Amino acid sequence: MNAPTDPHHLLPQLNLRDVPQALLDALQARFGAQCATALVVREQHGRDESSFSAPPPAAVVFADSTQDVADAVALCAQHRVPVIPFGVGSSLEGHLLAVQGGISIDVSRMNQVLAIHAEDLTVTVQPGVTRKQLNEAVKSTGLFFPIDPGADASIGGMAATRASGTNAVRYGTMRENVLALEVVTASGEVIRTGTRAKKSSAGYDLTRLMVGSEGTLGVMTEITVKLYPLPEAVMAAVCSFPSIAAAVQCTIQTIQLGVPIARCELLDGQTVAMVNRHSKTTLREEAMLLMEFHGSPASVQEQIETVQAIAQDNGGHAFEWASTPEERTRLWTARHNAYFAGVQSRPGCRAITTDTCVPISRLAECLLDSVAEANASGLPYFLVGHVGDGNFHFGYLIDPDSATERATAEALNQQVVARALRLGGTCTGEHGVGLHKMGFLRSETGDGAVAMMRAVKQALDPHNILNPGKIFSL
Amino acid sequence: MNAPTDPHHLLPQLNLRDVPQALLDALQARFGAQCATALVVREQHGRDESSFSAPPPAAVVFADSTQDVADAVALCAQHRVPVIPFGVGSSLEGHLLAVQGGISIDVSRMNQVLAIHAEDLTVTVQPGVTRKQLNEAVKSTGLFFPIDPGADASIGGMAATRASGTNAVRYGTMRENVLALEVVTASGEVIRTGTRAKKSSAGYDLTRLMVGSEGTLGVMTEITVKLYPLPEAVMAAVCSFPSIAAAVQCTIQTIQLGVPIARCELLDGQTVAMVNRHSKTTLREEAMLLMEFHGSPASVQEQIETVQAIAQDNGGHAFEWASTPEERTRLWTARHNAYFAGVQSRPGCRAITTDTCVPISRLAECLLDSVAEANASGLPYFLVGHVGDGNFHFGYLIDPDSATERATAEALNQQVVARALRLGGTCTGEHGVGLHKMGFLRSETGDGAVAMMRAVKQALDPHNILNPGKIFSL
Repeated sequence: MNAPTDPHHLLPQLNLRDVPQALLDALQARFGAQCATALVVREQHGRDESSFSAPPPAAVVFADSTQDVADAVALCAQHRVPVIPFGVGSSLEGHLLAVQGGISIDVSRMNQVLAIHAEDLTVTVQPGVTRKQLNEAVKSTGLFFPIDPGADASIGGMAATRASGTNAVRYGTMRENVLALEVVTASGEVIRTGTRAKKSSAGYDLTRLMVGSEGTLGVMTEITVKLYPLPEAVMAAVCSFPSIAAAVQCTIQTIQLGVPIARCELLDGQTVAMVNRHSKTTLREEAMLLMEFHGSPASVQEQIETVQAIAQDNGGHAFEWASTPEERTRLWTARHNAYFAGVQSRPGCRAITTDTCVPISRLAECLLDSVAEANASGLPYFLVGHVGDGNFHFGYLIDPDSATERATAEALNQQVVARALRLGGTCTGEHGVGLHKMGFLRSETGDGAVAMMRAVKQALDPHNILNPGKIFSL
Repeated sequence: MNAPTDPHHLLPQLNLRDVPQALLDALQARFGAQCATALVVREQHGRDESSFSAPPPAAVVFADSTQDVADAVALCAQHRVPVIPFGVGSSLEGHLLAVQGGISIDVSRMNQVLAIHAEDLTVTVQPGVTRKQLNEAVKSTGLFFPIDPGADASIGGMAATRASGTNAVRYGTMRENVLALEVVTASGEVIRTGTRAKKSSAGYDLTRLMVGSEGTLGVMTEITVKLYPLPEAVMAAVCSFPSIAAAVQCTIQTIQLGVPIARCELLDGQTVAMVNRHSKTTLREEAMLLMEFHGSPASVQEQIETVQAIAQDNGGHAFEWASTPEERTRLWTARHNAYFAGVQSRPGCRAITTDTCVPISRLAECLLDSVAEANASGLPYFLVGHVGDGNFHFGYLIDPDSATERATAEALNQQVVARALRLGGTCTGEHGVGLHKMGFLRSETGDGAVAMMRAVKQALDPHNILNPGKIFSL
């Protein structure tokens, strides 16, 4: 994780602002040992899972409370210095990099589950609570929080990037599952958006304006999300297919029939091979769907019968079933490790990941043409997809010191995005824009919509201190 | 529907701006017969289903296209004159009233279903398409659009108010079901928000910023919504209960168990009596739940068995079932007519409606205390509820010429709202803020959140021409 030397890593958004000593003094005075300026701490907070790098932030404030966040933001606001919220550092798009300098606000110590309302299927947490911690905390209630982006991300980070993952095909994304927020604004004021009511028409939807705003409109300090009853029956399955095309056709037909499948994940054959090597599994090294069915026993049985018939029509074979929690965990751990299995398949590499999402009817076209291009490029890659949603990720595995490979990967990424946009899709299904997709955002939404986003940003953060340089160049 | 003389009808937001003859001339030149200035047309467009009144708009432009809307807005923008989008006029909150004068833009002729993508479960429509028209248009595909606010509202109006209604307990509201929009901005520019992809993290969620913005941030000219497969099996049921409390307990337990009930509606006994008189039905005049179950035959059977057991535990009796479309339509027509049945039960009256929504665990407390207050007031009322969502409506039936009755109804409304807010709910589940709930919005969200909404409004509509005087006083 050394800072790369290749100038391709240095970003055009790099526009460092001064962090005056007076601010550092004020932060030290207010926060004492909660404010760290040691290089190692700053470097930990100045990078994420992306392949980008930038100089580290000038200091890290470890917030313990909403008041801490509010005070840190207010002090930074006085000095017009950027603030960058930090959860667990699992962003793939450079969200956490201090590309304009500034202060990192680490909320990982704000990890309290504040209120479980089992009877209303809601829970309120601090932003540093991770999804696994949340599920552990609510387990005894018979409820669960389904959003699962793979990484054990913080709920704050997931809300900030509008994350989703493997369960979104049935349960939706953070967009659908955040009910209410407490947010520290650019001036350090604390506001609340939304209530615990299931629906509301009370003015502008500030909750959803904040969800997916990548820390550029406010710092979330409390998050209320929906919970769901643990399904009575759960069955997971893997099924191998003679081709990616066949697996995708099976997915499309399943979704179009309205089967309430809970998870529907694609791995291509070479990614299955990477997973086998990494996780010591013995999965068939062919295109594969990993599926999960939730419901009453009868409903799960119905879903299985329907999907099995569709799979067989498409040449699916070698069904394996996992009904116990242990078997299911083993299966899904393999899927969750696909990213790391991919990265470890080429020692020293970094992954450049794509994140397009298209209407399901266009999935086969988008995916297969992109696979052909990736194969032709000669770059190694892994391929996984939340295909039930039309969302997939290539991870092009590049030598970080090779400008050529980086350029090849970026060119492939651009081709995938251009294709997805032509097919009515989006450049990012769940990772966010961050540093990497500003140009894509413009192509996708048009200048008018980007101008509207900028106007909102300007109105809510007039001095551009909230995670500046992300989403659009400002 | 004559303009009332009681000063209580005149609103503090009444702050008429001049509409210069030059603008009227320009609109006539651009739109010819599509621009009407006849008093009768203007009066039709200067009111809605609310009990408010204001002078009519200065002219009505009947838009046929996005370009028409853009040109009308651009002309009004030049002259700093308000524009008020108009669909079918079914707002209950005064959204359509020209409280600051201006021009009504009637989009009811923009009623084309533009693109049905059955394979992706999406459809794109113009804003004047009504929900019944939409369902007629997609019927042959085996899909349907579930959002059903009762009135045959326009999709544009439903999106603008973040509407929901009887199916929201299972299918969500317009918040969850609008995928993408084409919008004319305050300057007359045309932008697009969102794509047909099922999910996206591409920048700020402008789609959801527009949904529920009540025409104050832009005029919607195209709306892409989700469709759902028509369920294989549908069963509707009515069940009578010895008390409202018992019906509410049955609802709470059903939701907490995670039964995927598609509709769960409450009527109190006197409202059932009003419906019987209006619709010539013979329903038992007791508290009643109307329910609907969607799914496979086995799943519907499971749901029915579960809910029947819960109902019986709570004293539910006299189940009636409706499985054929004709029987179901009869049942639901009775529910849909409850509003008119209520209003017609007192000749010459107007209804002042409440719209609170609370977390389901607080529903019994909120509803029962509010019923006790309404009974004590002596005002006649009807009571219906989308109780599966924790949302209910009183309709206080007042003599529009009686300031006393209006004051009583408003006082009751305030008490209901104050109670809902205390219990963690919202002042409006689905009708919007409009003219009536500005004070409630402030109590609900706090000054900080309202200030943020105002900042967004100011940024996107600096001359305050888009439906001004709604949501907050500006």
